[in-house]
Amino acid sequence: MWIRNAWYVAGWASELSAEKPLGRTFLNEPVVLYRKNDGTAVALEDRCCHRLAPLSLGRIEGDALRCMYHGLKFDSSGACTEIPGQDRIPPTMKVRAYPLVEKQKLLWIWTGDPDKAREEDILDWPYLDSPEWSYKPGYIHYKANYLLIIDNLMDFSHLAYVHEKTIGSQSLAETRAHVEHMPFGLRIHRILDNDIPPGFIRELKNLGDRVDRWNIYDWHVRGNILAMDSGFARLGTGGHAGDRSNVVEFRHLSVQTPETEKTSHYFFGHPRDIALGNEILDDRLLKTVTYAFDEDRAMIEAQQKVLDITPDFKMQPIAHDSAIFQARRMIENLVH
Amino acid sequence: MWIRNAWYVAGWASELSAEKPLGRTFLNEPVVLYRKNDGTAVALEDRCCHRLAPLSLGRIEGDALRCMYHGLKFDSSGACTEIPGQDRIPPTMKVRAYPLVEKQKLLWIWTGDPDKAREEDILDWPYLDSPEWSYKPGYIHYKANYLLIIDNLMDFSHLAYVHEKTIGSQSLAETRAHVEHMPFGLRIHRILDNDIPPGFIRELKNLGDRVDRWNIYDWHVRGNILAMDSGFARLGTGGHAGDRSNVVEFRHLSVQTPETEKTSHYFFGHPRDIALGNEILDDRLLKTVTYAFDEDRAMIEAQQKVLDITPDFKMQPIAHDSAIFQARRMIENLVH
Amino acid sequence: MWIRNAWYVAGWASELSAEKPLGRTFLNEPVVLYRKNDGTAVALEDRCCHRLAPLSLGRIEGDALRCMYHGLKFDSSGACTEIPGQDRIPPTMKVRAYPLVEKQKLLWIWTGDPDKAREEDILDWPYLDSPEWSYKPGYIHYKANYLLIIDNLMDFSHLAYVHEKTIGSQSLAETRAHVEHMPFGLRIHRILDNDIPPGFIRELKNLGDRVDRWNIYDWHVRGNILAMDSGFARLGTGGHAGDRSNVVEFRHLSVQTPETEKTSHYFFGHPRDIALGNEILDDRLLKTVTYAFDEDRAMIEAQQKVLDITPDFKMQPIAHDSAIFQARRMIENLVH
Repeated sequence: MWIRNAWYVAGWASELSAEKPLGRTFLNEPVVLYRKNDGTAVALEDRCCHRLAPLSLGRIEGDALRCMYHGLKFDSSGACTEIPGQDRIPPTMKVRAYPLVEKQKLLWIWTGDPDKAREEDILDWPYLDSPEWSYKPGYIHYKANYLLIIDNLMDFSHLAYVHEKTIGSQSLAETRAHVEHMPFGLRIHRILDNDIPPGFIRELKNLGDRVDRWNIYDWHVRGNILAMDSGFARLGTGGHAGDRSNVVEFRHLSVQTPETEKTSHYFFGHPRDIALGNEILDDRLLKTVTYAFDEDRAMIEAQQKVLDITPDFKMQPIAHDSAIFQARRMIENLVH
Repeated sequence: MWIRNAWYVAGWASELSAEKPLGRTFLNEPVVLYRKNDGTAVALEDRCCHRLAPLSLGRIEGDALRCMYHGLKFDSSGACTEIPGQDRIPPTMKVRAYPLVEKQKLLWIWTGDPDKAREEDILDWPYLDSPEWSYKPGYIHYKANYLLIIDNLMDFSHLAYVHEKTIGSQSLAETRAHVEHMPFGLRIHRILDNDIPPGFIRELKNLGDRVDRWNIYDWHVRGNILAMDSGFARLGTGGHAGDRSNVVEFRHLSVQTPETEKTSHYFFGHPRDIALGNEILDDRLLKTVTYAFDEDRAMIEAQQKVLDITPDFKMQPIAHDSAIFQARRMIENLVH
Repeated sequence: MWIRNAWYVAGWASELSAEKPLGRTFLNEPVVLYRKNDGTAVALEDRCCHRLAPLSLGRIEGDALRCMYHGLKFDSSGACTEIPGQDRIPPTMKVRAYPLVEKQKLLWIWTGDPDKAREEDILDWPYLDSPEWSYKPGYIHYKANYLLIIDNLMDFSHLAYVHEKTIGSQSLAETRAHVEHMPFGLRIHRILDNDIPPGFIRELKNLGDRVDRWNIYDWHVRGNILAMDSGFARLGTGGHAGDRSNVVEFRHLSVQTPETEKTSHYFFGHPRDIALGNEILDDRLLKTVTYAFDEDRAMIEAQQKVLDITPDFKMQPIAHDSAIFQARRMIENLVH
């Protein structure tokens, strides 16, 4: 159960080299990723049409990929261009090529109807690729269906419990989010005026003992993308809509790409506009965010196990689930 | 295939604290166990009715248990008493509460029809909770259906083979057991007059070179309970029915609680009436019994694997199987 | 999908002792192998007819095997000859005995219709059991269906890719094999006149800078046996058909015995006619061949995983696959 016609994140651009192909499964389809001579990233079916050997065990030769079982060579369109010991190559000898776009440090793949893949539909999010923002790329592998992760992201009441000892706070858990329907999905506003800033914000900048705080989440139904604009401003200076000359700002991107029905890829980045190029801080923030996401993961994978043994159990909604249900309905509408 | 309306052992009382809930599966049902403020043990469904998160990952708050995903709080009756950010709590927000009784150091759970759960039906076995008996609690996890374990306990011919090098003896293997039908199940008498006492008995008490020996097993069909009265007496002093003023006595309790169709919990205790409070001996006897039970487990888990690949294979009975067949028939009669 | 009426290799004779039975699965059937007093190898069903305990956990007693669960004793015909505590033994108390023949260092088992098992049909291959040939026995366990391994052996185009850095060479990959139909299966000739000898051949014998080289493979459809005659001769001396007084010769045997639908046993030997009794060389050659076979195994097990997720995917043939298809057709004809 997933949307086929969508751009999904296939990986970080930095994961791909021209030396070694990378095998990865998206939406149950085995895919091999590699770079051509000129650096262009390519995505092919990771299954030789001859005897089903994975091409990810193969060898990059210029712009082509050679299967290292019997030596068949495929160009970046998936067409077989060489069969050792055989002159004629039947046109049926080919593997599927997937539209793949490298944009702003991410690789985006399209596993749906190729005629509907329009590059301009890919998220424009410059913060991953800008000298004015600093971060390190993050990745978590999940033993859970991607919908359970979306549920988690659509809901803030879990912050005070799952993240009780880390990023949670009672004020966050109690702030009712404002959910707005957008053409791309949902926009969720959470404004916390007059809140106590977390310790690490104090370290980065002296904004006073209390701050105005905002989190604006844009959730894109196609691709399972959550893009956040968040920040901390001096008390009474207007917060999100106000003067941003003396604030600490973060952006955040979380993307879930289904791997199988019961496993998911989770890519994330958490750029900041302060202490640019401070790699120690990059590492520390990546570690902090990963730690918090691992708290989620422990709960969600446990939830998946309960679902596995009682798949027909009916969940009961609470008031905080409003965004969850809106998100799930949007997905269902695009699946069917 | 198991009897629903029965009290099963859910654990040792010592396993439960007021600090941390304990998740355990019984008869395919995930259950969370915890203690209230006053120490009373509680058993609830280990699956939040909201989003199916396990409550065993939750937090004990006084008499209640809070789900640490979204903070729903459940009292010990399973009713939800708090939903963060929501005033009204629908009456359907609840998890199942299981009758749970703590008695003589064991926790007993009832997963069947609650109206039929009568506390007075729980085994009365004072030896686990008496200053006149000494032991340490035992537990083994089994990768096998509980019926295969019952087969093993109903049969003594295996002693000379499985336990050849440990607790087995030719005399034990050759003694025909006398099986008696009882209201609760079966009573099995094995009387070995004029037998050579095992080495560790000689260490505990000098009873002479030959002894009269008895094993009286009460097997309770509901709950899969085997309770044994066994002892060693001076030759010719009457054994089980005779003068017990100068004997060495053991009691033994073995209980199998089905976890899933292919896994089981096995709780056991082996109290003695001599060398009371000798913890070194407690440990040594627990180790000895566990070692012998592990010999059974190796065979029974191997048997389960053969069954897995040939589930329809028909077993052929031998004379020693009489008690096995009576036990299996009793179980079947109460299942259907 | 396999041929039932065939002799399959069950193991190396050296694997069997008179002390400990060996449990192994062939064509989905659990089998226990052991030796009688006089050394004769026996194969019985590895499943006691009483309660299904594996007899491979049992004890060899003279010519018989005793189940170590309840002590039933079986003679080498599979008949139960003793039930502890019981005088009469019903004729139904027996386990299946499999025809098993020890020949030229290998154990051959027949799991099909016993009336069709004729010992004279077993491969005659003296090289494993001759003072004029030297080798060490090899074994690999495969997580793949045996047919994928046969595919690999029937095809030489993979040599230049899978074994690129070990035993492969461009000349080998490009030599078209000549395939001949034989009563037993296929004979594949590969003649490489005027080839460069591999380094280790130069070490063994100085045959000059270029050699005539041959590989004649006999593939036996029943039992999945590949028996090879290969050698290196001085240039122009006739190779395979010529003067063998001054050559280096190898024989090779590779046998796949299906274990389950998705796992296989792979037995192999690689005897040579030079440096006899040189155990350091025996070890080195075993290591070299095993290393090369592990390269195949990595690819084939990866292929099996792709098959597992897309079992209906249609493979597309290439010119090199001719022998593969002939072999597969022969197997199919004998299965149906």
